Amino acid sequence: MSPPEQRFSVAQLQRFIASALAHLGMPEADAQTVGGLMAEADLQGSDGHGVIRLPNYAKRIRQGGMNLTPNIRIIEERAGTALLDGDNGMGHLVMKRAAEIAIEKARTTGIAWVGSRLSNHAGPASLYARMPLAHDMIGLYFAVGNANHLPAWGGLSMLLSTNPIAAAVPAGDEPPIVLDMATTVAAYGKVKTKAQRGEMMPEGWMVDRTGKPLLDPNRADEGFLLPIGGYKGYGLSLIVGLLAGTLNGAAMGRDVVDFNRDFQTTTNTGQAIAAIDLAAFGDVSALKARVDQVVRDLRASERMPGVDRVWLPGEQSHERREVNLREGIALPPALLASLDAFAHDIGVNTLGATTA
Amino acid sequence: MSPPEQRFSVAQLQRFIASALAHLGMPEADAQTVGGLMAEADLQGSDGHGVIRLPNYAKRIRQGGMNLTPNIRIIEERAGTALLDGDNGMGHLVMKRAAEIAIEKARTTGIAWVGSRLSNHAGPASLYARMPLAHDMIGLYFAVGNANHLPAWGGLSMLLSTNPIAAAVPAGDEPPIVLDMATTVAAYGKVKTKAQRGEMMPEGWMVDRTGKPLLDPNRADEGFLLPIGGYKGYGLSLIVGLLAGTLNGAAMGRDVVDFNRDFQTTTNTGQAIAAIDLAAFGDVSALKARVDQVVRDLRASERMPGVDRVWLPGEQSHERREVNLREGIALPPALLASLDAFAHDIGVNTLGATTA
Repeated sequence: MSPPEQRFSVAQLQRFIASALAHLGMPEADAQTVGGLMAEADLQGSDGHGVIRLPNYAKRIRQGGMNLTPNIRIIEERAGTALLDGDNGMGHLVMKRAAEIAIEKARTTGIAWVGSRLSNHAGPASLYARMPLAHDMIGLYFAVGNANHLPAWGGLSMLLSTNPIAAAVPAGDEPPIVLDMATTVAAYGKVKTKAQRGEMMPEGWMVDRTGKPLLDPNRADEGFLLPIGGYKGYGLSLIVGLLAGTLNGAAMGRDVVDFNRDFQTTTNTGQAIAAIDLAAFGDVSALKARVDQVVRDLRASERMPGVDRVWLPGEQSHERREVNLREGIALPPALLASLDAFAHDIGVNTLGATTA
Repeated sequence: MSPPEQRFSVAQLQRFIASALAHLGMPEADAQTVGGLMAEADLQGSDGHGVIRLPNYAKRIRQGGMNLTPNIRIIEERAGTALLDGDNGMGHLVMKRAAEIAIEKARTTGIAWVGSRLSNHAGPASLYARMPLAHDMIGLYFAVGNANHLPAWGGLSMLLSTNPIAAAVPAGDEPPIVLDMATTVAAYGKVKTKAQRGEMMPEGWMVDRTGKPLLDPNRADEGFLLPIGGYKGYGLSLIVGLLAGTLNGAAMGRDVVDFNRDFQTTTNTGQAIAAIDLAAFGDVSALKARVDQVVRDLRASERMPGVDRVWLPGEQSHERREVNLREGIALPPALLASLDAFAHDIGVNTLGATTA
């Protein structure tokens, strides 16, 4: 039997991440901010985008591939838009700032759109799409993925990434509707997880260079991810890349740096966030009540044989968050061991030794 | 041998449509506007959304389901947003106005978003997403489809539609990138086309109520469309419905009126268009040159075996448009016959008798 998963509070996770980043030279306040956002990713069940990323972020920092004291600044601005230069800082810092600017502007203009260049990986897309929710705003988020695993439809050259889309819509009494999806059938992180578990991939995730299904995740380098809906997902990935990358002067297509292989070159990551103020479209309570109605109608759907429940996008994540808040965030033993080794390596307290 | 397809100029098509609509009581200027947009749909190869729709639009008008003299007006407004009340007018008129307002606002604010309620079917999504292009702006368009053919993922109740997404991004020397896609694997129009042709549908378009593939398009009523990427496409369709419908107080979910069955009830169709001004993000020429580069890199991709060419979204439509401008728009004999019958029925000149 494998040892049980240990559980940690969100504060403990945040403190551990922040202490590591501060130890590596990040200003304390920024380290706390990043730690909080990364812990929030684990809290909502975005396991692949939380503390698991810390060792690789640290590797990039230690190899000089990330700027610990960035001057994040607006380089283009209109009443409803801004372009942020992230100065190669942590993506979490850049996108939190982007979301704050978008929310502030949308209060006046009704909608705002903030793009970034010279940013970095920022964790799960939903983290930022969710930020406008507390202000009764809809959030939309687009990002250029940090490694190309997708060719054009019919092509073989890896020029596109899993470029995710996230959208968050406030409800009234119901939890918000939160969609967070890669534009490929499977995100690349899921392929890596299959490899770690020694499992085969289902048909439809990847194909090899002749178009045949590729099932062995250890052979992922010999093929590529499939876009959702075939040529449609190719088109979506491209449009997201143009909106989040090309429009901002950020990396897109052949300029994308594979952040799993190269820890030194500036990634010039591009993202974009939009905030839409509900109040600009009428009475906020009435609008949220209409969203509630849609949620309830969908949930009350007649179901296909064998289906226990119809879920709304973000609902499972919402429930996971509630459980994790109550019971703590479970980390699998293998992850915990790697984080312990990481802590020893850089010389900070392990997660277990971090006060809750 | 079937008779050859006849070809018509865009001006001839526009005049024919306009004369029919004017004859049915639409003010002459509006009839010309709608005729022009519908002919433009045929010109760009969106066959399912052009003149083929005229008999059904006319049926709705004659049964009192559409307002021929709508007072299309802004009912909510901010610097970057507007909510249009379409007063149950033709969707083409409402969305053309919406696009104009979005473009005008985006000049100042950098981005603008205009939603509609009490609108109607407006033709192909790309028609409106393309409108900002001439102003060096990106266009985004979302709409609630006019019939529910999609349940929630795992559900059976038809609460969602093919809710399309369109995006148009200006390039420099290259044609613009124009994506226009339903959030289902196949749009419902394609199912109807298969039925007309007596062909089976490929697996993956539809399933029956037990989840088994449904291949006979004549049995379409016994099943439903599949969303792209499974639960992802369900999420996308829902988000598009919330943005284009619920946010605007337009029909969404159980309120959607099936416009193929009911020609009298106000559809309260919702759509949304956004315009993003390239100039708000830096030098326009440099930005368009970057888009050109992405286009050329994708087009020059190494290709899978048997693939002759890698296409960009909108490129085939762009080429069709050039051919149709030069050679005229080809209409299949069956469509022409039905349009002739329609013309006789309402008492206007047939398309063939309309001066070019």
